[in-house]
Amino acid sequence: MKNTLGSNVTITIFGESHGPAIGCVLDGLTPGLTVDEETIKSMLARRRPTSSIDTPRREPDNYRILSGVFNGKTTGTPLCIMIPNEETKSKDYNFGPARPSHADYAAHVKYNGFEDYRGGGHFSGRITAAIVAAGGVLIPALNELGIFIGTHINECVNVCDRDFGSSEKEILENIKKLNSKNFPVIDDDAAEKITAGIQEASKDLDSVGGIVKTAVVGLPAGVGEPWFDSLESLLSHALYSIGAVKGVEFGKGFEGSALRGSEFNDAFRKEGDRVVTATNNNGGINGGISNGMPVTFNVSVKPTPSIAKPQKTVNFLTGEEEELTIHGRHDPAIVRRICPVIDSITAIVIADALVTGFGPQVLLKGKALWNTDL
Amino acid sequence: MKNTLGSNVTITIFGESHGPAIGCVLDGLTPGLTVDEETIKSMLARRRPTSSIDTPRREPDNYRILSGVFNGKTTGTPLCIMIPNEETKSKDYNFGPARPSHADYAAHVKYNGFEDYRGGGHFSGRITAAIVAAGGVLIPALNELGIFIGTHINECVNVCDRDFGSSEKEILENIKKLNSKNFPVIDDDAAEKITAGIQEASKDLDSVGGIVKTAVVGLPAGVGEPWFDSLESLLSHALYSIGAVKGVEFGKGFEGSALRGSEFNDAFRKEGDRVVTATNNNGGINGGISNGMPVTFNVSVKPTPSIAKPQKTVNFLTGEEEELTIHGRHDPAIVRRICPVIDSITAIVIADALVTGFGPQVLLKGKALWNTDL
Amino acid sequence: MKNTLGSNVTITIFGESHGPAIGCVLDGLTPGLTVDEETIKSMLARRRPTSSIDTPRREPDNYRILSGVFNGKTTGTPLCIMIPNEETKSKDYNFGPARPSHADYAAHVKYNGFEDYRGGGHFSGRITAAIVAAGGVLIPALNELGIFIGTHINECVNVCDRDFGSSEKEILENIKKLNSKNFPVIDDDAAEKITAGIQEASKDLDSVGGIVKTAVVGLPAGVGEPWFDSLESLLSHALYSIGAVKGVEFGKGFEGSALRGSEFNDAFRKEGDRVVTATNNNGGINGGISNGMPVTFNVSVKPTPSIAKPQKTVNFLTGEEEELTIHGRHDPAIVRRICPVIDSITAIVIADALVTGFGPQVLLKGKALWNTDL
Amino acid sequence: MKNTLGSNVTITIFGESHGPAIGCVLDGLTPGLTVDEETIKSMLARRRPTSSIDTPRREPDNYRILSGVFNGKTTGTPLCIMIPNEETKSKDYNFGPARPSHADYAAHVKYNGFEDYRGGGHFSGRITAAIVAAGGVLIPALNELGIFIGTHINECVNVCDRDFGSSEKEILENIKKLNSKNFPVIDDDAAEKITAGIQEASKDLDSVGGIVKTAVVGLPAGVGEPWFDSLESLLSHALYSIGAVKGVEFGKGFEGSALRGSEFNDAFRKEGDRVVTATNNNGGINGGISNGMPVTFNVSVKPTPSIAKPQKTVNFLTGEEEELTIHGRHDPAIVRRICPVIDSITAIVIADALVTGFGPQVLLKGKALWNTDL
Repeated sequence: MKNTLGSNVTITIFGESHGPAIGCVLDGLTPGLTVDEETIKSMLARRRPTSSIDTPRREPDNYRILSGVFNGKTTGTPLCIMIPNEETKSKDYNFGPARPSHADYAAHVKYNGFEDYRGGGHFSGRITAAIVAAGGVLIPALNELGIFIGTHINECVNVCDRDFGSSEKEILENIKKLNSKNFPVIDDDAAEKITAGIQEASKDLDSVGGIVKTAVVGLPAGVGEPWFDSLESLLSHALYSIGAVKGVEFGKGFEGSALRGSEFNDAFRKEGDRVVTATNNNGGINGGISNGMPVTFNVSVKPTPSIAKPQKTVNFLTGEEEELTIHGRHDPAIVRRICPVIDSITAIVIADALVTGFGPQVLLKGKALWNTDL
Repeated sequence: MKNTLGSNVTITIFGESHGPAIGCVLDGLTPGLTVDEETIKSMLARRRPTSSIDTPRREPDNYRILSGVFNGKTTGTPLCIMIPNEETKSKDYNFGPARPSHADYAAHVKYNGFEDYRGGGHFSGRITAAIVAAGGVLIPALNELGIFIGTHINECVNVCDRDFGSSEKEILENIKKLNSKNFPVIDDDAAEKITAGIQEASKDLDSVGGIVKTAVVGLPAGVGEPWFDSLESLLSHALYSIGAVKGVEFGKGFEGSALRGSEFNDAFRKEGDRVVTATNNNGGINGGISNGMPVTFNVSVKPTPSIAKPQKTVNFLTGEEEELTIHGRHDPAIVRRICPVIDSITAIVIADALVTGFGPQVLLKGKALWNTDL
Repeated sequence: MKNTLGSNVTITIFGESHGPAIGCVLDGLTPGLTVDEETIKSMLARRRPTSSIDTPRREPDNYRILSGVFNGKTTGTPLCIMIPNEETKSKDYNFGPARPSHADYAAHVKYNGFEDYRGGGHFSGRITAAIVAAGGVLIPALNELGIFIGTHINECVNVCDRDFGSSEKEILENIKKLNSKNFPVIDDDAAEKITAGIQEASKDLDSVGGIVKTAVVGLPAGVGEPWFDSLESLLSHALYSIGAVKGVEFGKGFEGSALRGSEFNDAFRKEGDRVVTATNNNGGINGGISNGMPVTFNVSVKPTPSIAKPQKTVNFLTGEEEELTIHGRHDPAIVRRICPVIDSITAIVIADALVTGFGPQVLLKGKALWNTDL
Repeated sequence: MKNTLGSNVTITIFGESHGPAIGCVLDGLTPGLTVDEETIKSMLARRRPTSSIDTPRREPDNYRILSGVFNGKTTGTPLCIMIPNEETKSKDYNFGPARPSHADYAAHVKYNGFEDYRGGGHFSGRITAAIVAAGGVLIPALNELGIFIGTHINECVNVCDRDFGSSEKEILENIKKLNSKNFPVIDDDAAEKITAGIQEASKDLDSVGGIVKTAVVGLPAGVGEPWFDSLESLLSHALYSIGAVKGVEFGKGFEGSALRGSEFNDAFRKEGDRVVTATNNNGGINGGISNGMPVTFNVSVKPTPSIAKPQKTVNFLTGEEEELTIHGRHDPAIVRRICPVIDSITAIVIADALVTGFGPQVLLKGKALWNTDL
C-alpha cells in the first residue's frame, strides 16, 4: 500500500521536503482517546534539529489537526495532521548529480524524471515529522494502558551507552527518563562523548551512523500473528520505511546466532501469577507473537549520506561522471533525531497489532479486553 | 492480512504440522508462466531433511497443484498447491509444558487454548514447504528475466564461508552453483566443518544457529516504493515471517553503522552505458528503491529451539513450573534447510514488487516493460 | 485483492470447473468456533443441483477440511476447505467461440489465451460451492450470536413470492423456514408456479433470471464504516463477485428514489428500551452503518447465459463470426441455487464487519463485546 | 480499509463538515500526469450548490494541493488536496435527536458519543468535494487515453431524461455535452421539468430522490478481476460509499431479470477488426471483466434525508421520543450535485483497475500497454 501502513490502525503519509506541507492521516483510531497537544509538541521538539550536531534548518513544526478530533478527543474518523514547510531553501538543490547513498538516482529511474528532487522531495527525512506527530497522538494512549516505549543511542562513534537493564522495572524507569531527555542516552557521560565525536566528524566535512536500541514494556502476551504478520514482520516493515535504517534485530539478534539452543532458549518460570522468562534473548517475541516480556530491538542507522566532502558521482541528466560537493543544510548524524521517530512508528505498529488482536476499543479499555477471563 | 503476503502477487498459506495437509494459494501470477515441476521438486528436495544434521522426519512432499495451471502454464487465476502431511507422529507432543523459545505459550494465550499444538501446529517450520513450492513456481520465471537469487550459510559454529564476491559476474556464478548444491556454502571445505560442528552440538543434545547471506542479481533499478513499501520493508517483512529469524540487515548492515559517510557512501560511476556504484554498502537499495546493483542481505537464524537437553519451563495447563525433556524429531540446525525458504520468499517479494512497479505482464516480458524508453 | 475478500475475516478462493479441485482458505476466524459438519453438508446440499430445473451435473461435494480445525473447533489459523471436482466432462467445451454473456471473451483478452476455458474455468459457478462451504462454517457461529440470514426467490417468471413480513419476529420465522427448504420461497404455491415457468423455458431451450431477496436479523447497531467500508459497499462488493448478479439494492432501493423524503425517511421510535424505526426503507443501514433494524437487500440475477438455442457469436481463435450451439450441462435458472450462495457470502461479510468493529473474540462472545456498557 | 479505497491507485479521505478542512490523499498515481487546475475547479463548480434547488451553504472550495505535484505534473508520490471549510454554522446543529435516515444514531452507537455531530460530521456530503477534486486530477488523464465518463439524471420527480443512445459515438457525444452542463440532463426540457418538481417539493418542506445513469466509453476489454475484484464489485463498492445511494445496477439490471437468456444475452459480432456485442444488456462487463463495450450503470439516490417538515424521532441523549424540526441549510434534491461525484469516484475505480491490470505507466501510455500485441 505504498504510503499507507497498518491493517486496522493505519497511517498514510504525504508531502515533500520543499512542497507546501507534509502530513499524515491516521485512521482506525478508537473514538474517545484524549489528544494531548503538549505531547505532540514535545515529541516534535525531540525530533527537531536544535543542537550543534544537527542540520541548521529550523522548522517550527506549526502543525495543524485538520480532522478527527472533537472536544479534545479522537472521533474515530480519520485524523489528519498537516505540518507546513516554512523554511525551505530550494536553490540549494541541483537536479542531475545523484547524491551517493541517497534515493536520487533510484527515484529518478522509478519516477521517470517527474520526482520533486528538491531536498530529497518525498524521500526526505522531513516526512518523519508527520510520523512523530502521529506518535504524539498514540503514545499517550498506549501509556494509559501501561505500555511504554523508549529508544536510546546504544552505540555511536565507538561510544556505548549503558543498557536498559534486565528487570522490567529498571527498563521502565529508563524509558521514562529517556522520554524527557533531549539527548537520548541512559548514561549522560555517553552524551558528551558522542556529541564530541559527531562534532569531530562534522569538522571533517563527514558524517557518522550508529545503533539505537528500543524497548517496549507492558505489552501483553498474545499480540501479533503467525507468519506474515508476525510482530517482528510488522515492526521491521515499519522501521525499514525510515531511509537510513540498514539493520533490524530483535532480542539477542545477530549475536544470538552464535549461541547454542541451551544458551539461547528463554526458560519459562513463574513470577507470582505471571508466566515470565528467565532471560529475554528472543526480545519478547516467540513465533511472531508477544510473550509478555519486554519487546527489544536494535536498529542500525547508516551514516548520513549528505556530507560536505567532495564525492564522485554520475549526473543523470548529462549521463557523465562528475565530482559533487553537497551544499545545503544537513545533519552530521541522525542517531539523536531518529529516536522519537522510532518510538512513534513503534507506537503505530503496536496500536495496530492491539486493535487487530482485541478490537478497536482496546486502546481505551486495555486490560479489560486482553484479559482472557473476560 | 495475517497469512497472506503481498500486494499484487500474493501468497496465502495454510496448514498445521500434523493436520491433513499444508499448502498455499498464489494469486496475481502473470498468465503464461511455464510451471516447471522439476524445479518445484528440486526446490522441495533442497529443503527436505536428508542428512545427519536434520530431523529424522521424512516427508515425501508429494505436492499436488489443485488449480491455476493449464497445459503446463499459469492461467493467471489462483494457483493452489497442497502438500499432504504423511509422516506425523502426534503422540510425541504434549499439551501443557511450553517449549522454551517456541510459540507454544504465546500461541496458547492468543488462541485461548484452541490452537493445534501438535508439532507446533500452524507455527511449525513444516509450513515453509508450501513457501518453497511457491518459490519453485516463481524462481524459474525470474530467472527467465535475468534475475537470480542465492543464499548460503555465511557463518555457523564459528566457521565462515567465502563471500559471494564483489563483481556481479562472480556473484551470479556463485548463485548458480549454490542452487545445485545440497549443502549451500560456496567453499566446500566450510561444508565439512559446519557439518561436524552441528553433529557435535547434536551429540551434546543441543542445537546451533547461524547467519545466512542472500544475493539477488539482475533486479533493475527503480523497484520498490518510498517509505512503507520500501524494498527493505517488504523483504524484512517476509523474512521475519520465518519463525527462527531474529535479525535482518542489508548491505553492510550493522557493521556499516560504525563507518563515516565518506567510507559508507556508494559512489556512482559509469560502466559502459550503465550507472553502477563503486561499492555496494547499501545492498543495492537507496531510499527503499533498487538502484540496479545486487541486493544483498544477511539473516540471523537463532539456534533451533527444540533440544533434547532437559529445560526448565512452565506447564500452562497446571500453571506449575516443571522440567521438560523434548522428545520427537528435530533439527539440530536449520541453517541448511532455511536457504531455499529464503530464496523462495525473496522470489515472492521480488515478483510482487516487479508487478506492482511494472504491471502483471512484467513476469513474462521483463525488460520490455521496465526499460524507460518503452 | 483479486480472489481474497475481507479485512479481518478473509476468504481466498481457488479452483476451476474442470481442474482437480476447488476450495477456499478462511482466515481470521475466532478460535473456538464449533465447526458443524452437518451444517456444511446441508448448506452444500441446498446449493447442489438436484431437481428438474438444475444442471444434470452431479457433484457429490466430498469436501475435506485440510487445516484450521482441531477437536471440532476452529483453531484461529487458516481453515482450508478443498472440494474435489469429480464429475467433469471437458470434451463438452470448445475453445474459440465466445459464449454470449459469459466471461469467455473478456477472460481471453485478460489472460492472453492462457485461461482454463473448460466449463468456464475459474469463472464457473462451481466455485460458489467453496463459498457455501465457508458459509457452513460461519452461519452457525452467527446464529449462536442471534444473527440469522435468509434469502428467498422474490420474483421469477413473473411469479412473486410473499414478503418476509414487516416485524422482526415474522422475518426471523421466515428465515428459519427458508433455511430448511429445498426450494427457497416463503409461499409454497409460488414454488410450483416458478418451477413450472422454469421448466417451460427449459423446454424452449432457453433460460430465465429472477430477483432474490435477503434479510439479516439480529445484527446490532453500529456495524460498518463510513464511506468506503460502508456496510452497503462491503455487501454489494461481495454480492457482485457472483457472476450472474446485475443489480443490488438495499431497503426500498430503486423504488425508493420516487418517494419524497417525508415518505422515505424511517422515523425513530422506542420499543421498550430499544431504539427502532417505524419503517425500514433504508434496509437497516444509515450512513453505511447498521442501525439495528433488519438489513434487507434485493439481488437481480440475470438469465443463465448458457442456453441450448443457437446463438450468434465470434470465434476468437479464427476471428470469424459463427453460430454457436452450447452443449454440456446447464441450469435453466440459478435463482434457486444462488440463495445459499448469497446467504454464505453475506455471512462472510457480516462476520468480517463484526470482527473489524468489535475484535476477533466477537464471533464467540457477541453481545458482551458489542454492548456499549462493557 | 475504512477511509481508503483502491488497490494500486488509492484515495484516502478525511474531514468533517464543520472541522477546519476536508481533503484526500491520492496515491499510486503515474508520475508525469498533467494536473489541470481548471478541470479541478470546473469539477468542483459542477458539484457546488448554486441554484434554487440546492442548499444555500456557499463553500468557495478554495482547495490547495499540498503535495505530489511538481512543475504541473504528478510526481508519483502522494497527492494531498486540502479544502478548507469556510462557511460553517455549527449552531444550527443539535446533539441528541437522531435525524431520520441520517447516520446520527448509527454513528452515535458506533463511536460511543465521541463523533463530531455538527452537520453530520464525517458523514456529511461535504466530504464528496474531496472526491470530486480527486476526479479533477484523474478524469483528464483518462480522457487522454480515450476513456470518457458521464452521468445524467435519468429520472426524477417522475420526469425521465433521454437515454445516452445506443452507439458508442452517440454516447460519447452526450458524455461530452453533459460534462459542460450545469444541470446534467441530455434533454434540456427535462431540466426545466425536474427543476420545477424539486422546487415544488422544497416549497412543501420536503425532498426528492432520483435515478442517475452513468456511461463509460473507451475502456478496453480485459479490465477487472474475476470474483472479488470484479469491475461490478469495485464500482458498486465505491458508489455505495456515497451516503444517499441505495441501489446500483449494471446494464439492464433489475429489468433484465425478467428476460429470457435468448433475449438478454449480448451476441458477439465483428465491427471491422473489433469484437463488439449487438446489444449491451450486460453493461460492458462479462464475468466481472470489461468486454470493450460501454460500461453502464444506474444509481438510485434516496430523497435527501434532511427535510424541514417536522418528523418523529428519538433523542439519544434523553432516550425519549420527540418531534424534530431540522433547521440549517439543506438540499431538497442531490441528484444534480451527485453527478460529478459519481463521475469522479468512477474515474478513481477505473484508474485503479487499469493500473492493477496494466501497471502504473498505463495512465500515461494507455493503448501501448493494453494492446495484447505489445
